Amino acid sequence: MKRLQRLFSGRWMQKTYTLSVLNQQNSLSNNCSTEDVKKESNLNCHLFVGATVLAYLSYKLFYEEYVAYLKEIKTLVKPGALKENLPNYTLKQVAEHREREKRIWVTYKDGVYDITEFVDAHPGGDQILLAAGASVEPFWKLYGQHHADFVYEILESLRIGNLVDDQKPSSTTSDFSDPFIKEPIRHAALIPASEKPFNAELPPTLLVANFITPNELFYVRNHLPVPEVDPKKYELEVDVEGTNKSIKLTVESLKKLPKHTITATIMCAGNRRSEMTEVKPVKGLSWGVGALGNAEWSGVLLRDVLISMGIDENSNFQHVQFEGLDTDPTKKPYGASIPFWKAIDRKGDVLLAYEMNNEVIPRDHGFPVRVIVPGVVGARNVKWLKRIIVSNNESDSHWQQNDYKGFSPGIDWDNVDFSKSPAIQELPVTSAICVPSPNQTVTVRDGHITAYGYAWSGGGKKIIRVDVTIDKGDTWHVADIIQQDSAEPPQHWGWSLWTVQVPVSKNAKEVEIWVKAVDSSYNTQPESFKNIWNLRGVLSNAYHKVPIKLQWD
Amino acid sequence: MKRLQRLFSGRWMQKTYTLSVLNQQNSLSNNCSTEDVKKESNLNCHLFVGATVLAYLSYKLFYEEYVAYLKEIKTLVKPGALKENLPNYTLKQVAEHREREKRIWVTYKDGVYDITEFVDAHPGGDQILLAAGASVEPFWKLYGQHHADFVYEILESLRIGNLVDDQKPSSTTSDFSDPFIKEPIRHAALIPASEKPFNAELPPTLLVANFITPNELFYVRNHLPVPEVDPKKYELEVDVEGTNKSIKLTVESLKKLPKHTITATIMCAGNRRSEMTEVKPVKGLSWGVGALGNAEWSGVLLRDVLISMGIDENSNFQHVQFEGLDTDPTKKPYGASIPFWKAIDRKGDVLLAYEMNNEVIPRDHGFPVRVIVPGVVGARNVKWLKRIIVSNNESDSHWQQNDYKGFSPGIDWDNVDFSKSPAIQELPVTSAICVPSPNQTVTVRDGHITAYGYAWSGGGKKIIRVDVTIDKGDTWHVADIIQQDSAEPPQHWGWSLWTVQVPVSKNAKEVEIWVKAVDSSYNTQPESFKNIWNLRGVLSNAYHKVPIKLQWD
Repeated sequence: MKRLQRLFSGRWMQKTYTLSVLNQQNSLSNNCSTEDVKKESNLNCHLFVGATVLAYLSYKLFYEEYVAYLKEIKTLVKPGALKENLPNYTLKQVAEHREREKRIWVTYKDGVYDITEFVDAHPGGDQILLAAGASVEPFWKLYGQHHADFVYEILESLRIGNLVDDQKPSSTTSDFSDPFIKEPIRHAALIPASEKPFNAELPPTLLVANFITPNELFYVRNHLPVPEVDPKKYELEVDVEGTNKSIKLTVESLKKLPKHTITATIMCAGNRRSEMTEVKPVKGLSWGVGALGNAEWSGVLLRDVLISMGIDENSNFQHVQFEGLDTDPTKKPYGASIPFWKAIDRKGDVLLAYEMNNEVIPRDHGFPVRVIVPGVVGARNVKWLKRIIVSNNESDSHWQQNDYKGFSPGIDWDNVDFSKSPAIQELPVTSAICVPSPNQTVTVRDGHITAYGYAWSGGGKKIIRVDVTIDKGDTWHVADIIQQDSAEPPQHWGWSLWTVQVPVSKNAKEVEIWVKAVDSSYNTQPESFKNIWNLRGVLSNAYHKVPIKLQWD
Repeated sequence: MKRLQRLFSGRWMQKTYTLSVLNQQNSLSNNCSTEDVKKESNLNCHLFVGATVLAYLSYKLFYEEYVAYLKEIKTLVKPGALKENLPNYTLKQVAEHREREKRIWVTYKDGVYDITEFVDAHPGGDQILLAAGASVEPFWKLYGQHHADFVYEILESLRIGNLVDDQKPSSTTSDFSDPFIKEPIRHAALIPASEKPFNAELPPTLLVANFITPNELFYVRNHLPVPEVDPKKYELEVDVEGTNKSIKLTVESLKKLPKHTITATIMCAGNRRSEMTEVKPVKGLSWGVGALGNAEWSGVLLRDVLISMGIDENSNFQHVQFEGLDTDPTKKPYGASIPFWKAIDRKGDVLLAYEMNNEVIPRDHGFPVRVIVPGVVGARNVKWLKRIIVSNNESDSHWQQNDYKGFSPGIDWDNVDFSKSPAIQELPVTSAICVPSPNQTVTVRDGHITAYGYAWSGGGKKIIRVDVTIDKGDTWHVADIIQQDSAEPPQHWGWSLWTVQVPVSKNAKEVEIWVKAVDSSYNTQPESFKNIWNLRGVLSNAYHKVPIKLQWD
């Protein structure tokens, strides 16, 4: 076994590099390949620059052994398929195996695997432990090089059982006193900000590992319990206030309308709130930099639906309201609204989405239909969409009227009047450093340190520049945009991933990295949280500052 | 004469107040009256709060004398009309009379007036000297209360002559070695940033005296000599690249198309450059906070013209180029371009404008036709429009390719590559304090100081809040929006005027006022120029900071 591991370890590395070059035209999740890229390199590629050198050496060393090994392979396994005569395990049982003492289990499709002995040999290091007690699939979407025959071989050699579905709602066992009893099981890599309702973000390092965030790892922002929806019975009602215009749409009828796909980042208004809290406490979930994700959303343009009902750009409506199937204890649904012009605009791209990254939208993200309002705060992207109302009034919901609004730093809970501020719609420009982490010890190589992160702006604006400094603004370095969508403003909805190499003064022992982004309207970020502090801790887009320790190579 | 002046002075004050109340429905330039106002009060109103008290006392004192005076008036004069048997003066001659020693002359329509003896009696104080040697008309647009019979009476009592037109091009006297020989005469209140080409801004105090900036006082930004255009021979050519679509439009044919009016602020990319220069020198005109103005523009929607030529939102063009009639010594015209989507967008409001504030556009502002691209940097609002080209390419002009672009503070003239930055289009959010002026001594009243200013954002965004601090951000005060346009985003093109009363710590001798604005995308301004410095000194939108001295009441 140990000899096998050493072999695999070497093989992994050389194969990894080969695959990352050869397969880039095929792998959907390998972001070196997308035509949309501004630069062909991406974070994976960068991570593998170092690996390349090692891989080349490994290739020389292991070549003969590898050729021999290839000859041994008679037939390729079908990875993750059900295997008879193996024990069945539920996700809940798998989730109990997250430490060496209890053995470390993971799942892949229908397979359950004990990877305890493999962990040390994993070329990606400890990252594999993020999948402990859960599925490796989202990580394999992040790091596309796993989709290789020799990786499947390793995996199946560790097979211990089959995964059985324990997600089915079981009304007989429901505890009716807990409205959260029927929540979906979430991936263990998500860091919860609250459990009930469930809210969670991805660790920053994983966040920027891929231009597209896998569904299982997409940040979750729920205000209420996740509703259980039977897609066969599902109906979306669209009403036009003051008229008798009203239609009902099923999932099937939506799928018969023209399908439209956009790449859009959805971000919570409270993303990066934890940094603002350091100035003075605020009310809200203590999000880090991970309350956002970037996905491909497919569905029907709300504009197309409205036009089919006889509503167009000339109609004199002011707002479009959305209601979700998620309700509070008084049965009042989650609600929000957007300006009518955004809904009807030819370039608004407001979607009634039924697919997320080419899969059915997961329960946590609005199954079976949610509205995607690109460029606009997450709170208006109503999930589990039940009803749309074309209206002259904003939604009267709590979340539209008395939450998700910005205020001056001089306003606090004793003098706030929520009617004085407009509901947040388009979000301002922001950015964050995701690698390295705060207080991490970073190795200086060739006199430089390397950082990675994201930048994004609302309203269809494109990021045109990311500036980084490690001397409090005396010297600014322009980061390289690793990847961004090819769509031009005002329809540029996705984030931009960036990297930068910054020269470090000799013998420096610690530095603080600052980042700011500039969007296509040349708006940029404010410097400090003190001057944008607000009682709800929203719109927390000041410079992201990450102190690190330095270790010289 | 002196008795008359004293009488008028008293009458002026009481009439001023009466008129400001009674005539507010009629006076176009009195901004208390506009339906668009968010608050009915404005700067004028505020200035007259103090005057009201005095006016009431004056009313009591002067009532009887006033009634007697009214009886004397037999027929009202027609102010500013030609009067036979008076000497003729040219604007150039009038301009020589700007000081007491040489007598102080002003003009109103066709009249020339010697106001030397009236200056001390003017209720508005020294402000009247801003019109010395020039026309009072733009100031009467700023301060609408001048349009009253008793004011006309005073004026005509000071009449000394008639104004004759010395603006006519006289080819016999032209000095062909100076391409600037045929420049229009500008109002003396404009502060030149450069003479040839002429570039000038308004003093900040006047800038915020009215929501609409009078044509004569609108900032001027010329890159080349002002062309002389015969409106009867004028033709605007519109071409569609790669097709044989081409039309020619005269002023008359434009006027036959549907007329569209918008209120839009036009701002130079270099507005407030002088503040950025303090960090480190930049290249460009040293603008203060006055390189912008707000006007009503009327003309034909470019969209309508393009649609009439068979171009619509589905057309696959990328840019629309503009060429002016102003040319450099090699006969190359001023040029710029905007994205095609902005030109064709239903909400883009791009205008082929032939009127500015209900008057023919003045020569300095593009007579007879300029393009107004609301929400977009002044440089793309091409004046003296000669040609429009629907294209797949940006304008190749110097001003599109090698100027009007933003860069990182780390980029200087030794390492700049203009191809790396996008041409500025939409401008970021900005604001400025216009009253008080830097280093002014301000009287503290009831423990407070009062400030006035403007705020604006590009891209059709509305200003939703203006924050002011005098303790470096420890305490922020929300300013009152005095006036803003009623148009909603994404078609809110005008600026917002604001005022704030800030409490001052007892015995403080000096403070520094800071302002920042927030727009409807919740973008706000960066704090310091250091971190947004760029070699051309554009996009200079950091907090405006005005140090003042305090005098206790």
